[in-house]
Amino acid sequence: MGEIIKPMDIEKESFRIISEELGETNLGEKELLVLKRVIHTTADFEYKNNLKFNHNPVEKGIELLKNGCVIVTDTTMALSGISKPALKKGGNDAYCFISDDDVISEAKERGITRAQVAMEKAAKINKPLIIAVGNAPTALIKLDELMKENKIKPELIIACPVGFVNVVESKELILNHNIASIVAKGRKGGSNVAAAIINAMLYQAFER
Amino acid sequence: MGEIIKPMDIEKESFRIISEELGETNLGEKELLVLKRVIHTTADFEYKNNLKFNHNPVEKGIELLKNGCVIVTDTTMALSGISKPALKKGGNDAYCFISDDDVISEAKERGITRAQVAMEKAAKINKPLIIAVGNAPTALIKLDELMKENKIKPELIIACPVGFVNVVESKELILNHNIASIVAKGRKGGSNVAAAIINAMLYQAFER
Repeated sequence: MGEIIKPMDIEKESFRIISEELGETNLGEKELLVLKRVIHTTADFEYKNNLKFNHNPVEKGIELLKNGCVIVTDTTMALSGISKPALKKGGNDAYCFISDDDVISEAKERGITRAQVAMEKAAKINKPLIIAVGNAPTALIKLDELMKENKIKPELIIACPVGFVNVVESKELILNHNIASIVAKGRKGGSNVAAAIINAMLYQAFER
Repeated sequence: MGEIIKPMDIEKESFRIISEELGETNLGEKELLVLKRVIHTTADFEYKNNLKFNHNPVEKGIELLKNGCVIVTDTTMALSGISKPALKKGGNDAYCFISDDDVISEAKERGITRAQVAMEKAAKINKPLIIAVGNAPTALIKLDELMKENKIKPELIIACPVGFVNVVESKELILNHNIASIVAKGRKGGSNVAAAIINAMLYQAFER
């Protein structure tokens, strides 16, 4: 391995390779940076076709992050993947309620998922809200319910749970709402993808 | 969405679908459960061809986890994705050193990546060791160096960084060692994949 590229140049070179292999897209510059970061995180070019941007979500997300908002993720992994230094620059907060004691006990009592209860907890936040779901379709299904009941109104939804059951359908539910969203259509997604999407907006909002 | 499957049955049904679509493999039962959990985490059947098991790593991993070992991950995301209740059942510990103050300052001083310094820190652990790399090829490259210098001797290596630069090569380095390993060949991998592999072994070691 005599030709190892210097660590600090790896990301730059990675994005060059991604741009080259990606070819033409019909995305704007801001969306394209989100797509490239998702591919950087997954090495999966299927996102070129799967990742859908609805109601100008990237510009909206960047504005939200610049002005200070609250991000709620469905998993601690997604939360853990979000760049904390960049997050703090805009005075943003990020939470995941899935492992909170009250969420765990309430989910057990009611026989529903912790992701569902965690989404109800998110509905109590009175600040501009980004919901980022990378794992639990039940979180999106609950979010759809809460939105229909006017109990929550996120400014932006990142909808990319991964999996084989309820996942595709849960994403379609989100697309029915007149709300800015970034949706990984189909089965693919993940906590890493949700975090990458948030980070791609953070890096556009703030110098790294 | 009138036919939503109950949350608790989602995983079971997901694994049924995965088994059906996966078809025949030449893997043993224990390895197969690891592969299926990786596909469950990524919805990506490419791992059927990419995921390589060397020197009986799954049986070894299960034994290590049953008897108490230390897992070191390269990212907080991978650490965060490991099932903590299962981990504790065997008296195992898991660490990620990437955000430790001493690692950050030493990496800056020496002009190398935090992942490299974190791997040197892992080398100081005097317990049976599983190294799980889901992100940083430089962690694997450093690990290869340390192994050649007899400064570290992990019992098991999970090698699945993701990306476009140094990644494929860093995985090949690990395959040259006579050590149990699970390697996601090629560009794909991720912190989620590393965590899924650990969890698949934990779930085989302990009742959930």
